Amino acid sequence: MIKQLNHIGIAVKNLDESIAVFQKLFANENIHRETVTEQKVEVASFKVGNIIIELTSPITQDSPIAGFLEKRGEGIHHLAFESDDVQSDLNRLSQNSVKLINDTPQPGAHDMLIAFLHPKSTNGVLIEICQHKV
Amino acid sequence: MIKQLNHIGIAVKNLDESIAVFQKLFANENIHRETVTEQKVEVASFKVGNIIIELTSPITQDSPIAGFLEKRGEGIHHLAFESDDVQSDLNRLSQNSVKLINDTPQPGAHDMLIAFLHPKSTNGVLIEICQHKV
Repeated sequence: MIKQLNHIGIAVKNLDESIAVFQKLFANENIHRETVTEQKVEVASFKVGNIIIELTSPITQDSPIAGFLEKRGEGIHHLAFESDDVQSDLNRLSQNSVKLINDTPQPGAHDMLIAFLHPKSTNGVLIEICQHKV
Repeated sequence: MIKQLNHIGIAVKNLDESIAVFQKLFANENIHRETVTEQKVEVASFKVGNIIIELTSPITQDSPIAGFLEKRGEGIHHLAFESDDVQSDLNRLSQNSVKLINDTPQPGAHDMLIAFLHPKSTNGVLIEICQHKV
């Protein structure tokens, strides 16, 4: 079951420059940097009150984030909602005619399992469902 | 000071159809509908755990949301962060070279005061700062 918003992914071209921008906004100091090889991205994440913001930049030209930046420019890439059972949500949504990008969970940042729904099914919003590995 | 994420605004063409989509995702039952004349929109909002999702559709052709839909299509429109003093945040950010759309707070949904920052200053993300009216 989907429980709450975990993080907001924002696609950026230059990770250092965008960290400086978001530090101006939120005066956030604890920034976690991580490379997620499977997704071909580098991520800088920090907490803002009740949620996490993940600034995400591509590390290769064929990264999905590189394609997004080329097509849409910088901006919000996805919303990630935390679930206690991603696979069961994927099954339920698929049965309810929601189109999936991943029909099984994949490894993501912060040692989580993640899966994306297709934005064509969800009013243009790219939604990730994520779950802490047990 | 900015404290936490209050809501995520999603621009949609048809409010009834998109409510049905998001009910499939989140099984949310308590949906608040409201017309915000000043912003020329109708809003359907509901809680998902720690945050609120606001589905927003235009009620006039010259609504800012109508322009967004025409240019970008449906999708995430803005992130709204709650502050205890919007005007003081606007002053602070403006002094730090963040471009503002509104330099004073305006009336928004849920009886709040709201102001937008310019997405050119914030990596393409339209950020609203909001505050409950005292």
